[in-house]
Amino acid sequence: MAHLPGTSIHLIADLKSGSGLADAARVEAALRKAAAAVGARLIGIHVHGFGEGLGVTGVALLAESHISIHTWPETGVAAVDLFVCGKDVDAEAGLAAIVAAFDAAVTRLHHIARLQAD
Amino acid sequence: MAHLPGTSIHLIADLKSGSGLADAARVEAALRKAAAAVGARLIGIHVHGFGEGLGVTGVALLAESHISIHTWPETGVAAVDLFVCGKDVDAEAGLAAIVAAFDAAVTRLHHIARLQAD
Repeated sequence: MAHLPGTSIHLIADLKSGSGLADAARVEAALRKAAAAVGARLIGIHVHGFGEGLGVTGVALLAESHISIHTWPETGVAAVDLFVCGKDVDAEAGLAAIVAAFDAAVTRLHHIARLQAD
Repeated sequence: MAHLPGTSIHLIADLKSGSGLADAARVEAALRKAAAAVGARLIGIHVHGFGEGLGVTGVALLAESHISIHTWPETGVAAVDLFVCGKDVDAEAGLAAIVAAFDAAVTRLHHIARLQAD
């Protein structure tokens, strides 16, 4: 990885949204905006739509780890995680970009410090 | 997504290992074994190596969400997450497959229930 552990944060967020959750292009755009907001170097984005009106799963691979979005338009929810390493990245800004992209509300949020020395 | 939320579990595991962490082929094999052990339907695997002797990042997209592995051979650690949805999947079995693939020990483990109704 491009950055050694030590400042690794993993945000785990459940979202509620009424719009865009079945739209693979919107998921891809949200991943790009989130990666930019984080300040990460994007390695690749992979998005898969499960069919008309159904959910979308998407992952952005970063030099600083990853961002994922999984959506269930049937129930108006999305599961997001942002795992980023390094001093110059801002996971919270990435989450805010995803929330804005879907006009969503965060219903549950966990902050997990990863790979910390004991 | 293929499964509605309700039985969604996200395992967040930090691993310690002395072998294979710089080997992209081994990361890909570990993701395949983990997806099979989970009982998931694999949509795609994306693996990126950061260079000779350096870390590897890999993600398996599943019909039931995703599995990721990020490694830092410099410090002998890996960060793994398995997010799976549905009744017939076993996240713990997937983690065990990854641990076995790298002859690793789990140093920290979080179980997070995702997308639960309030």
